[in-house]
Amino acid sequence: MMSNAPSGPARAGHIAPDDERIARAALSRLMEPQDTAGLALVRLTGAVDALRIATGQLAAGPSLEQEMTALLLDGGSGSWPGLPASLKRWMPRVPDLAPERDLATLQRLGGRIIIPGDALWPVQLADLGLQEPLCLWWRGHELEFPPLRRTVALVGSRDSTGYGGAVAGEFAYGLGQRGYTVVSGGAYGIDAHAHRGALAGGSSDVPTIAVMAGGVDRYYPSGNEELLRAVANQGAVIAEVPPGSAPTRYRFLQRNRLIAAFAAVTVVVEARWRSGALNTAHHAEAIGRMVAAVPGSIHSANSAGCHRLLREGGAVCVTDVGEIAELAGGSGEELVGEKEASGSEHDGLTLEDLVLLDALPLRTITSVEKLGVVAGLGPEAVRAGLGRLGLLGLAVSERGGWKRARKNA
Amino acid sequence: MMSNAPSGPARAGHIAPDDERIARAALSRLMEPQDTAGLALVRLTGAVDALRIATGQLAAGPSLEQEMTALLLDGGSGSWPGLPASLKRWMPRVPDLAPERDLATLQRLGGRIIIPGDALWPVQLADLGLQEPLCLWWRGHELEFPPLRRTVALVGSRDSTGYGGAVAGEFAYGLGQRGYTVVSGGAYGIDAHAHRGALAGGSSDVPTIAVMAGGVDRYYPSGNEELLRAVANQGAVIAEVPPGSAPTRYRFLQRNRLIAAFAAVTVVVEARWRSGALNTAHHAEAIGRMVAAVPGSIHSANSAGCHRLLREGGAVCVTDVGEIAELAGGSGEELVGEKEASGSEHDGLTLEDLVLLDALPLRTITSVEKLGVVAGLGPEAVRAGLGRLGLLGLAVSERGGWKRARKNA
Repeated sequence: MMSNAPSGPARAGHIAPDDERIARAALSRLMEPQDTAGLALVRLTGAVDALRIATGQLAAGPSLEQEMTALLLDGGSGSWPGLPASLKRWMPRVPDLAPERDLATLQRLGGRIIIPGDALWPVQLADLGLQEPLCLWWRGHELEFPPLRRTVALVGSRDSTGYGGAVAGEFAYGLGQRGYTVVSGGAYGIDAHAHRGALAGGSSDVPTIAVMAGGVDRYYPSGNEELLRAVANQGAVIAEVPPGSAPTRYRFLQRNRLIAAFAAVTVVVEARWRSGALNTAHHAEAIGRMVAAVPGSIHSANSAGCHRLLREGGAVCVTDVGEIAELAGGSGEELVGEKEASGSEHDGLTLEDLVLLDALPLRTITSVEKLGVVAGLGPEAVRAGLGRLGLLGLAVSERGGWKRARKNA
Repeated sequence: MMSNAPSGPARAGHIAPDDERIARAALSRLMEPQDTAGLALVRLTGAVDALRIATGQLAAGPSLEQEMTALLLDGGSGSWPGLPASLKRWMPRVPDLAPERDLATLQRLGGRIIIPGDALWPVQLADLGLQEPLCLWWRGHELEFPPLRRTVALVGSRDSTGYGGAVAGEFAYGLGQRGYTVVSGGAYGIDAHAHRGALAGGSSDVPTIAVMAGGVDRYYPSGNEELLRAVANQGAVIAEVPPGSAPTRYRFLQRNRLIAAFAAVTVVVEARWRSGALNTAHHAEAIGRMVAAVPGSIHSANSAGCHRLLREGGAVCVTDVGEIAELAGGSGEELVGEKEASGSEHDGLTLEDLVLLDALPLRTITSVEKLGVVAGLGPEAVRAGLGRLGLLGLAVSERGGWKRARKNA
């Protein structure tokens, strides 16, 4: 499956060299997600040398530490305790390293590791800057990751209400039908409804992707095992942590940045005042992705987080699939157009004609003079207005007088 | 009741002179609301001369027409057909003028007319510019109009749902309890719930005000007669059109600008995709007032207008009385503070401490070394973190090892 390929910019079918692949597999076990010191090290020395430094096989000179400091400050980190502190952090895990075993595990499960430089690497992850993951452990067919503008994240509470579940399902189904890929986190509640809806409605090669906080060798939570198996069969189940990693709270929070980075829009379907889904929304905002929130009853605690996002100004209010598609930059504008077109027959009337229409009796006929008194218009204005209303089918002339036209007559 | 008072700026107890009052009463029958030509004429010549010109008793020179044109262009009007066209519009109603009779009608009903210059004139109406009404026909006690920052408009559909009615009622009650005046339109549905809630909760001198599209001599719609009588008894029922005026659709639309101008915030509680309440919101925006909208189910057509306001960016999402009060600029911030304070025990932890907390077992104890492996931290970082978590009551040391502290233990 793995072969040495020429270095250089990624192109179709290109895969990165084996030693780089194995080094990143090992580093992803050594370093927690978003270990910025580790990521800076990899960026400066490459994965192979970074692994040798991290495991103590290669000594780092003082200039490397200076470069790391500069890169970390550039990337927005404050002061950092220095490379020795990082080495001390990584050291306890060195004895557990077995990247070939991890790769073999994934291969046995029909999966693989994807690393930057692979043609299949999602280019949108570059927007994470220094926080771009080291690799992605990928369970499912070998599929191209959908482009940003065709990917929508649907996220929300685990303890969703009937309303939230229905909305997640109908949005995912509709997005699937339009060929969008729905990204979510594989959890109970909103996530599960989103994956299920996308599988049902999906018309693209990758209807849905589950981004896990723990290793993809195990389908977690177990109650979603069957669902996640279906997601892997039709789409993909992915993680930045290696097989066997537990889904800790810290990893959930870091995982959220991946969901946000994959998608053009992160839609928060239901969330409490404090919720992991808001964390995903903040990640999305931080890298300039659109955030949308679904409104709900003000009496539902499960919508309080959505309303908070709307109120604090970061999120766009979305109520149907067309609006989401519009935000993603794909199709969908037509739906909004339809809604606007269903207006009243009185749209576009001038205020003067509206006054005149109000003044016209429904049953009896009236004269131009009387209309002028009732409407507060001069006789010429009345006559001109009656002409316009007549053309619109809103007024009719009978026996020298005028009355309102009956609807549907 | 009426007396001549010295001219000059308005002050407590000051009332404008009688002839001005009678002229404005007459003009309010001659001219439809927001008849900008008429309002420009009054502004240039004063109400008394404007009435004489409008009724043909006084000829207008060419310079007056030029000044009117300039004023109308200034006020944002496009070209206007000129003074003769306006005179033709007003003429049919001249024979019906009987301002003393109208004033007597209101007096018999326990009411009065309020005009600019009266101490009771709501100063916030000046923000309407040329569209400031000629007068207000006022049914209810002689009360000072509450200041802008203590006035909130609650508006919405006539065919409200149970949800919308409940929200309007609870918001109005809460605003009333905090001493705000609730302004609405006296109609069925949201308006009625708003007035009723404010009457029940009201603690200020003016718990609620109904702004009518037709004359205040008649309580309209008849199903709200009892409610509107109570509003007049405890607050006020007001209109810019004289007694006997029918509530035409045109007047409803114009009335909405008054509701918007009275209040610091216009809250749209429930509205369809197209709704008169949105018209009020647009009036509010046009004069720089805050617009707020209440979210609801995306499956409710009665919330579609609210979501449209939220989506199109003009409105702030509000979910409780505290948020509305905050927008109005009065009290209320404390409520939001309470909500934020009810956070999780993990707020404020660094990511490193969160990782460590995740790694701590609940039942058995573990060593610093093992924690380092699980958490991906060096031993010093583990020890420092355990110290912090211990201080927060989240970790406990037992027999030389560490475990997580039980909640509420």
